[in-house]
Amino acid sequence: MKRVKLEVAYDGTNYYGWQRQNGRITVEEVLTRVLGGLLKEDIVLTGASRTDSGVHACGNVAVFDTNVRMPAEKISYALNTRLPDDIRIQSSCEVPLTFHPRYDAHRKLYRYRILNCTFPLPTERLYSHFMYYPLDVERMQEAASCLVGRHDFKSYCSVNTAVRDTVRQIYRINISRNENIVEIEVEGNGFLYNMVRIIVGTLIKIGTGEWEKERVQAALEARDRLAAGPTAPAKGLSLVKIYYED
Amino acid sequence: MKRVKLEVAYDGTNYYGWQRQNGRITVEEVLTRVLGGLLKEDIVLTGASRTDSGVHACGNVAVFDTNVRMPAEKISYALNTRLPDDIRIQSSCEVPLTFHPRYDAHRKLYRYRILNCTFPLPTERLYSHFMYYPLDVERMQEAASCLVGRHDFKSYCSVNTAVRDTVRQIYRINISRNENIVEIEVEGNGFLYNMVRIIVGTLIKIGTGEWEKERVQAALEARDRLAAGPTAPAKGLSLVKIYYED
Repeated sequence: MKRVKLEVAYDGTNYYGWQRQNGRITVEEVLTRVLGGLLKEDIVLTGASRTDSGVHACGNVAVFDTNVRMPAEKISYALNTRLPDDIRIQSSCEVPLTFHPRYDAHRKLYRYRILNCTFPLPTERLYSHFMYYPLDVERMQEAASCLVGRHDFKSYCSVNTAVRDTVRQIYRINISRNENIVEIEVEGNGFLYNMVRIIVGTLIKIGTGEWEKERVQAALEARDRLAAGPTAPAKGLSLVKIYYED
Repeated sequence: MKRVKLEVAYDGTNYYGWQRQNGRITVEEVLTRVLGGLLKEDIVLTGASRTDSGVHACGNVAVFDTNVRMPAEKISYALNTRLPDDIRIQSSCEVPLTFHPRYDAHRKLYRYRILNCTFPLPTERLYSHFMYYPLDVERMQEAASCLVGRHDFKSYCSVNTAVRDTVRQIYRINISRNENIVEIEVEGNGFLYNMVRIIVGTLIKIGTGEWEKERVQAALEARDRLAAGPTAPAKGLSLVKIYYED
C-alpha cells in the first residue's frame, strides 16, 4: 500500500466547498468518485483544508491510500482527463504512510482579491469581491500590522465553530494594488473558521475610512466576534498554497 | 435628440459575440432589449467592434440616439441594475450627433492571455488559453517586431471575410510574463477578422520553438492565410480599449 498526495486546484463557484455533505455537490465528493472510478478501489480522501462554499483553491492538498500499481506521479494526468474542468490536479506524488495533510501542514497562504473601481468587471465577477468605494491600501497595510504574530484570534473567527484553542500565528499580511485589483495575502500557521474573510472584512472598513485603524487591534483584544468587521464574500478568497517540512 | 456613447464590458463566455444574430444570444441583442425597456423607446445600437463568439471586452463602445430626458451620465447606473451580471456599462456620456463609434475610432487595444504551466488552473479556464509547452517570451517579442508598422495583413486574416483593403497599422505588440500568465497586447488603428488571434497563434508557434522567428515576416510577405499560424481560441482574447480623438 502507498499513500498518494494530491495538490488540488478548483473553481469553487459551483461547489458547496471541499467537504462531503449529503445531497450537495462538493469537491471532495467529485474527486473521491473520479478516483474510485480510475483506480477501481474504494478511496477515502483526507483533505488539508475544508474550504467553504464558493472559495477557490490552487493549492489545496489531499491524500489517499491505494494498492494500485500506477506510479503516483501519473495519477494527476489520469485524473485530469476524467475530472470536470473546474477541478484540476496540479501534482501527485507518493508520501510516507505517516504523512497527514492537516497535522503536518505548517504554513498556509491565502489570497483575497478585491475589484476596486466604479463598475464591476464581468470577467472578474466570479473571482473577486467588488468594492465601489476607493480603498486606501497603505492605511490597510498599516492597520494590518498588529495582526502579524501569535495572537488569540477569537474575534476573527465565526461564532458557529467548536474549536477551543483560538490562538494562531500570522507570519505576514501583504496588501497591494495592481490597477483595479487589490490583493490581500495572508500567511499563517493555521486559520480559524472564516478567519481570513473576517480579517479582510475588517480591513475593508479601514480602507474606506469608515473605521479608525486602531479598531483592528481593539477587535483583537476584545476576543468578541462582534468587535471585528463583517465576513467578506467567499468568491474573493483562494487557498493558494500549503507548506510542509521537506 | 441626443446621442449617447456607452463603454461596455462583458464576459463573452455565454454569448455568440457582439452582433445580433437570429436565434442566438448576443451582447448587442441583450443590451438593445434592456435599453428599450429602460427608455421606453425603440433603440438602435451601433457598436464599435463586433467581437467574436467567446471574446471578452472591458472597453467596447456603442452609441444610440434617444429623446429621453435622463442625463446621459445616469444611464450607465440605470442599465447596470437591469443587465445580467456578465454585461456591465463602464460609462455613459453624451457625444455629438456626428460621432460614429467605428469610423471615429483611431486606435484599439486588444489583450490575449495564455496560461502557460503544467496543468490548467480552473479559475483561469474561461479567460485564458492554456499552453503546456513553455513559451519563450523574449523570442516571441523579437519575432513580433516585424509586424509593427503599416503592412498588408492578408495572411493574418480569416479567409471568410469580404474586406478588400487588408492594410492595417500596428502601433505596438508587447509580450510579457507574470508567473504563469503570458500576456500579449496588440494596439493598432484597426483589425481584420481574427487578426489578433492569428497573430497570437503564430507567435505561439515561435514561442514553443516549433517555428523559426523568420516565419512571422515570411507569412506577412506571403499574403496567404495558410502561411500564418492557427487562430488562437477566442476565450483568451479581450478588447481592452478603443481610443478616440478628444
